[in-house]
Amino acid sequence: MVITLDSPLDMHLHLRDGDMLQIVAPLSAETFAGALVMPNLVPPVTTKEAVCAYRARICDAVGEACFTPYMTLFFKSDYTPEFLESVKEEILAVKLYPAGITTNSEGGVSGFDLAELSPVLGAMSELGIPLCVHGESAGFVMDREKEFIPIYEKLATHFPNLKIVMEHITTKEAVAALERFENLYATITLHHLYITLDDVAGGLLQPHLFCKPIAKRPEDREALLKAALEAHEKVMFGSDSAPHPRSAKEAPGCAAGVFTAPLALPALAQLFESHGALGRLQAFVSDNARRIYGVNPPEKEVILEKSPYLVPEIYEGTVVPMFAGQSLQWRVLRVG
Amino acid sequence: MVITLDSPLDMHLHLRDGDMLQIVAPLSAETFAGALVMPNLVPPVTTKEAVCAYRARICDAVGEACFTPYMTLFFKSDYTPEFLESVKEEILAVKLYPAGITTNSEGGVSGFDLAELSPVLGAMSELGIPLCVHGESAGFVMDREKEFIPIYEKLATHFPNLKIVMEHITTKEAVAALERFENLYATITLHHLYITLDDVAGGLLQPHLFCKPIAKRPEDREALLKAALEAHEKVMFGSDSAPHPRSAKEAPGCAAGVFTAPLALPALAQLFESHGALGRLQAFVSDNARRIYGVNPPEKEVILEKSPYLVPEIYEGTVVPMFAGQSLQWRVLRVG
Repeated sequence: MVITLDSPLDMHLHLRDGDMLQIVAPLSAETFAGALVMPNLVPPVTTKEAVCAYRARICDAVGEACFTPYMTLFFKSDYTPEFLESVKEEILAVKLYPAGITTNSEGGVSGFDLAELSPVLGAMSELGIPLCVHGESAGFVMDREKEFIPIYEKLATHFPNLKIVMEHITTKEAVAALERFENLYATITLHHLYITLDDVAGGLLQPHLFCKPIAKRPEDREALLKAALEAHEKVMFGSDSAPHPRSAKEAPGCAAGVFTAPLALPALAQLFESHGALGRLQAFVSDNARRIYGVNPPEKEVILEKSPYLVPEIYEGTVVPMFAGQSLQWRVLRVG
Repeated sequence: MVITLDSPLDMHLHLRDGDMLQIVAPLSAETFAGALVMPNLVPPVTTKEAVCAYRARICDAVGEACFTPYMTLFFKSDYTPEFLESVKEEILAVKLYPAGITTNSEGGVSGFDLAELSPVLGAMSELGIPLCVHGESAGFVMDREKEFIPIYEKLATHFPNLKIVMEHITTKEAVAALERFENLYATITLHHLYITLDDVAGGLLQPHLFCKPIAKRPEDREALLKAALEAHEKVMFGSDSAPHPRSAKEAPGCAAGVFTAPLALPALAQLFESHGALGRLQAFVSDNARRIYGVNPPEKEVILEKSPYLVPEIYEGTVVPMFAGQSLQWRVLRVG
């Protein structure tokens, strides 16, 4: 069995910087035509120069591969409309982080005071720049996304022309919110389609499956699966592939993030096929994102076949992927 | 400020075997007058000979210290009344594990078929041997204890004269069950009084706080705290101190267990004092257990004072304790 994907896109990707960028960027570029690149570097990407310089480093790491990094800016409430207009052509979206909620988010937003956020959000709405949000409260870890939904609703109501993407959603409540507001969209990761908290901490503890937002309950995973498998028109694939060195994962104070980029397409094909939904994978991994973001990725034909694929234990001796050392049922046959 | 505890007891303790036993048994014996020792060795403790041999190894590891290991037998549904009678004098309780639910529980009970369990439970009831239970279903990790409550209720109803101890309870539902059945009792650990899932996985992932049952929600911790601080007459301290080598904790597939035995009394004194409940600590760590189990531990006066105590980073280069490298406000001043 074979499936051909036309220019797959990963609409939520962490490429990091420095040595890690050199390791992971080529792995994404191998099978994806483009990706929305998150700006949570140290320091965060907050200027036009930083956007352009980061893109240049990504392109350099990717080399000859046909791959478009769609850039994002790290949300700051003091951006001026003039600045946003000047940077508009260089970015696809602005990414908003609550302060301290995930890796390198210390410079994010504290509180969601509409008066404070409105000037920037209003300007983004006018300029047609989508807002991507890491939507978690500072509450109990299993409740954080659910508790953030009212903030999504407030933003969606006050800025009806602003496209708001709920990033890496993990709950049935977030899926339900898609139906209530025309301007709410979502990305769903690979790992949240596969795992619940049981896989992280139900048996032995699995640090390589530890991520933010944390994997939730079985009924949450079911809701995400349903939205992904029907390729809900407001839902896009975004891996949230988030590499950390093995030493930062297998230690006390283990960093949050699951590294999935190199195996995302085979694992998605396996999942969609097992649910008889292979025909909707193209929409989930590319068409929906093109329509929502209005992007035209470079032509890239990725042919996957149903044939065993042994996922490497580790990449470059540094990053341990999801399914490390395990066999998937699909593999990338050819990229053209 | 000083408090004197009279013969503190730890009514749920893992002493392991071999090298680990040599490390941890003296640490418990230093400040506790006795402990109920769990039988989940490999192979589990299921014969009179195994009980006596394990006790001898514990006494040997403890040396001169004044410390009584109260022994338990690993529940098997094929024990005969004659066997139970013959072993009765050597044990304080029988410990029941659902199969596969925690460390070395593979030989435990599959399903809770009353017809299968009744002969042994009936004999225990007749002989006055208490039943200790690791009460978790095989469901979603956050629901396992809650889902097990109906089984506790079934057991409590069918065997009204059997003392049933819900071990290391972690939920408000378990606390509530204490009120509904006269013959239900409970142990509460140190760590479940201090932490919720937020401490394990809400920030960075903390493998040394990973345990079974997993730490639950803030309202669950509140219910446990209330029961402990009022020294609820059906509640006893049981540390569930569960040492694993550091290498088994700081790796993928991290083993479940928090090592608290050596710092349990200072940490409890700190907690009870901060809630103005120091006067009820004696009941929680000793008197309730004496009354419930009818035991008379050896005389051991433990004097704690409010004075900083730096918890070691690691014991014997092997076991990392809770609060490793942190300072507690209370320390053991003298043991007499």
